[in-house]
Formats: sequence, C-alpha cells, structure tokens
Amino acid sequence: MDVKKYVRDVKDFPKEGIIFKDITPVLSNPEVFKFVIDGMIEDIKDWNFDTIIGPEARGFIFAAPLAYKMGKKFVPVRKPGKLPYKKISASYDLEYGSATLEMHIDAIEKGERVIIVDDVLATGGTTAAIVELVKKAGGIVEGVYNFAELSFLNPREKLNDIKVGSLIEY
Amino acid sequence: MDVKKYVRDVKDFPKEGIIFKDITPVLSNPEVFKFVIDGMIEDIKDWNFDTIIGPEARGFIFAAPLAYKMGKKFVPVRKPGKLPYKKISASYDLEYGSATLEMHIDAIEKGERVIIVDDVLATGGTTAAIVELVKKAGGIVEGVYNFAELSFLNPREKLNDIKVGSLIEY
Repeated sequence: MDVKKYVRDVKDFPKEGIIFKDITPVLSNPEVFKFVIDGMIEDIKDWNFDTIIGPEARGFIFAAPLAYKMGKKFVPVRKPGKLPYKKISASYDLEYGSATLEMHIDAIEKGERVIIVDDVLATGGTTAAIVELVKKAGGIVEGVYNFAELSFLNPREKLNDIKVGSLIEY
Repeated sequence: MDVKKYVRDVKDFPKEGIIFKDITPVLSNPEVFKFVIDGMIEDIKDWNFDTIIGPEARGFIFAAPLAYKMGKKFVPVRKPGKLPYKKISASYDLEYGSATLEMHIDAIEKGERVIIVDDVLATGGTTAAIVELVKKAGGIVEGVYNFAELSFLNPREKLNDIKVGSLIEY
C-alpha cells in the first residue's frame, strides 16, 4: 500500500513557507490506519524494550495502539502543567525561544528499556528532549520509531548513536 | 479486575480543592490497559457507528486503540490552531471564560454515524461542544463513551437525549 497517498500536504502551516504533513487522512481510513499500525509493529518486533513513550498530542495516536497491541507499558510525555503528579522536565530549543516537556517522576524505573514513538520526526528537537528525560529517570533508550521522517531536516544529527526507524520517509 | 485501583487521586490539581483522576497508572500496566480497551470495545460492540471522534489529548489514548481494533474511522478534535487544514469550530463555557475546539471540515460526511470517546467525562462541556461540531458537519451522534465518568458532576445534564456509557463511574 502506498501510505504516502494518504498524507496530505498543507501549504504555509503552521507558518508561511512550511509544507505541513497532515496525517488525518491516514486516521480516517480504517484500512490504512491498520496497515500503518501493523507495519510499525512489524518493523520494531525485534527491538528489546518494555515501554513505549509517546509525546503529546499526535504521538499518542500511534504510541497508544502500539502499546495496546504489543502488550507494552505506555508512558505519556506532555507539555508543562498537563501531568498531575510529580514530574521531571527537559527543555529544547525552537527557532525562537525554547519549549519544555514533562514526564511523571515514577513513569519509568532505573534500567528500564524504552522506545520513543511519534507521528513525524522533523528536526529531532522534541525527540532529543525525551531522550534526556529517559536518561534523567535512569532508563535506557532502545530506539526511536516514527510513522514518518522528514529526512531533509536531518533529524538524526540530533540523535547521535540512537537507533532510529520510520515507516515512511520524505 | 478492579480498574479503579489503577486510577490515582491527585489532590489540588489543576487547582486547590480539585481531586484529579490520574489515569497514567492504567497506561503503565499493559494488562490493565488491555483489560480497559477490550472492556470498552465490549461495551460498545452493538452501537451503530462508522467513526470514533477523540478529543485532544488524553482522548487520543483511548480513541486511537479503539478505532484500530474495531476497524473504525478515527477523527481527532483539537484545540485552536493545531489542525492544519480547513476547520469548523465550537466553543463551550468554562468556569471563567470559554474554550474552543476544532475539527477538519472534511472529517465527517453528512449522515455519518459517530461516537465520541474520551478518557474522563467530567462536567460534559467538552463533549457537548463536540456534539455541536458533529451536528454542524451534518453527522449523527450515536453516543458518547468514556473510560471514566464523574457522575457527581452531573455531566449527562449537558448531553440531553444522547446515549452515554462509561467503563467506570465515580
């Protein structure tokens, strides 16, 4: 199946000059969404991990079905002020300023093997911040796996020696 | 399984006097999460619908696995400025001020039967706004189904004659 046919290019979002990859047509076609989730599971079935971390909000859409189907722990990483319990945080640079992500302090244990699952790997900034969160908690990042990867933005440069995989690449 | 054992009460979040129902312990236990998703599917298996609408962000965690497993369309409803394509919107009252939700204009078709799936049904304000979005798009709300319902906040008062179900109730 040519999954890219179901990813819609939206020009000038979120700002002029950016072509945004809109995944909602993938979600609104049950056969395509099943093909995508099953394909992601097939790609990572030999990875060694107990836990899937998904960042708010679109990461949840892929990480939650993967965790459900594979029988893995699901840990949400969220924007500041959203998680209710005690938290740890990591910040990352944006084009102007910076952003922060939070994870519950008891979300993962020392030595726990985790993967990070997101919808689109773009600059790699968000993912690098989550890697930092996992390390702060004493966890081990087995790898990073995405529905789509924007290779032309060179996200792997920010992720150094971490294993990275994606179902589709641009 | 006593699912409520895995919902953590967090006092004074998001503000003093509120006891927040933290669902992250449900997510971090694969057996419990599977029991919850499978139980939700069992509850709605005879409902007549093609599409599951899930609101950002925690709604995605339940709506996406349900859509995947049941072979239904998944439509995200999001906060303003998050969806990239043309949108319709609906507003709802908060204690002070109001909030707005958006859905893609082509997300559902006239006559399409949808259900709304969220993590926690509290005051019903968010859900009522999504019902309005579905009606604006010409869709039919088959029902509303939640992981948990805070009955003591009387959410069903805002939802009139709509069918409402929840896996657990407080």
